[in-house]
Amino acid sequence: MDSSLLDCEQHIEDAMAEHATAQCPPLLAQALNYAVFPGGARVRPQLCKAVALANNSSDVGLASAAATAVELLHCASLVHDDLPCFDDATQRRGKPSVHAKFGERIAVLTGDALIVAAFQTLAAHAVHAVRIERVPLVTTIVARGVGAPHGICAGQAWECEQRVDLARYHRAKTGALFVAATCAGAASAGVDPGPWVNLGASIGEAYQIADDIKDAVSDPETLGKPVGIDVKLDRPSAVRELGLEGAVSRLKDCLESGLDSMPSCAGQNMLYKLVRAQSSRFIPEKLGQVAA
Amino acid sequence: MDSSLLDCEQHIEDAMAEHATAQCPPLLAQALNYAVFPGGARVRPQLCKAVALANNSSDVGLASAAATAVELLHCASLVHDDLPCFDDATQRRGKPSVHAKFGERIAVLTGDALIVAAFQTLAAHAVHAVRIERVPLVTTIVARGVGAPHGICAGQAWECEQRVDLARYHRAKTGALFVAATCAGAASAGVDPGPWVNLGASIGEAYQIADDIKDAVSDPETLGKPVGIDVKLDRPSAVRELGLEGAVSRLKDCLESGLDSMPSCAGQNMLYKLVRAQSSRFIPEKLGQVAA
Repeated sequence: MDSSLLDCEQHIEDAMAEHATAQCPPLLAQALNYAVFPGGARVRPQLCKAVALANNSSDVGLASAAATAVELLHCASLVHDDLPCFDDATQRRGKPSVHAKFGERIAVLTGDALIVAAFQTLAAHAVHAVRIERVPLVTTIVARGVGAPHGICAGQAWECEQRVDLARYHRAKTGALFVAATCAGAASAGVDPGPWVNLGASIGEAYQIADDIKDAVSDPETLGKPVGIDVKLDRPSAVRELGLEGAVSRLKDCLESGLDSMPSCAGQNMLYKLVRAQSSRFIPEKLGQVAA
Repeated sequence: MDSSLLDCEQHIEDAMAEHATAQCPPLLAQALNYAVFPGGARVRPQLCKAVALANNSSDVGLASAAATAVELLHCASLVHDDLPCFDDATQRRGKPSVHAKFGERIAVLTGDALIVAAFQTLAAHAVHAVRIERVPLVTTIVARGVGAPHGICAGQAWECEQRVDLARYHRAKTGALFVAATCAGAASAGVDPGPWVNLGASIGEAYQIADDIKDAVSDPETLGKPVGIDVKLDRPSAVRELGLEGAVSRLKDCLESGLDSMPSCAGQNMLYKLVRAQSSRFIPEKLGQVAA
């Protein structure tokens, strides 16, 4: 398959152009674009669109809207996660974090406006959707990935509790949006999303473990943000729980179990390759030997 | 009309029960309920539902979902507005604000999760909507009322700019959600929302002026939150711009112009009474003579 079909950048740009307009308060408009562009690897929206295409979606526009929504929600979560009251991170993607550059107030509002923009993008597509009857389920899936009780907000909130189950915390904080990506992709193709939960959950778990590993062993220049945050904030982490080798080993197990669980579909090979390619970036190069 | 038809409390409770569950991190679950119950006057959701009923809506469930979404978004905006980086308000509705009681992190997450819950409520209704084709427009209207460039987020963001046009600031910060309430009510009844913009905008403007008046002349016990914030934070305010009598006079003009603009519909008299009853609470009693 032509990999450009998975590219979501134009859809994300089109969506943002509706919000960061000349009528928008200038600082908020700047911060909205700053939080979304240039993006990271856009792993989640590509995964969402790939699952839809692998299932021969008859409403690719819906898959693109869902993919865009998932990415905007991811960006929103990063902006709020970096706030002084959470990670107090002054760097993100190799540049000052949104609150470091625009102040805390604009950072809170940027996250809020991106959450709204995500759902507005889905609603805007629905106005002329080929398959409008699929939109409610797709929207519900995306919302579950970010809200309470099981989405990103819940994941962050587990950081505020005295007792935390590590798996549950990771599932909510990172897994839920990957689950939303695979399941929204399936639902936008009119396919039962249930069997796609495990693939998303497994990639999400692997990704979170990779994040813990990077926090433990990377340098700030490579990572583009501060390192050592988990220990500094006494936060649960796979590396702190399992050690470095244990964490790398669990990461690999996660990915394999996710790929094994993938439902049979027309584009199974394409999806298999995409997930492998995406996850090859999960582990820092200098750990290649440990991971091999 | 039976005024209990306008009651949205059960719908709001049902919606919140989906999020503040036993699986939710306990502090977040408590804070979500704390932010929404007991509510204020529920002016916006009642207005939304009243406009739908006045237009003989054939999908009252959609109007109730829209009304609930509008109220949850209002609650979210209060939680974030009270944060230390904005108003730094420790009291709200006569009790400690969410961040004062649960901490800043839970307050940020509560606002985020309420925004998500608002759109999830609309999507959940859409799954079995009588008129699914109306949901995208209703959702878009609600989203416009809170996001960028013209909704609440934009309104708050104008507070961060050096130069602010007072009317534009009020329109976004307060008017936009009232416009969303009237227009979403109309759209959920299948009626063109355009002619309903002015009613919402006028009530919103009146409400914001009333807020400025209360901030200038109330005592904290009556208001249930700190007073004198506008002067303290050097914020634009109708009282600072027009003086007390000028502000009261503009408030009354706003309401009259809004009521004059109301499109003709089956329930026009009921709506007229509702808006009059709601707005009678706008002006503090001790200003009755000034306002008469």
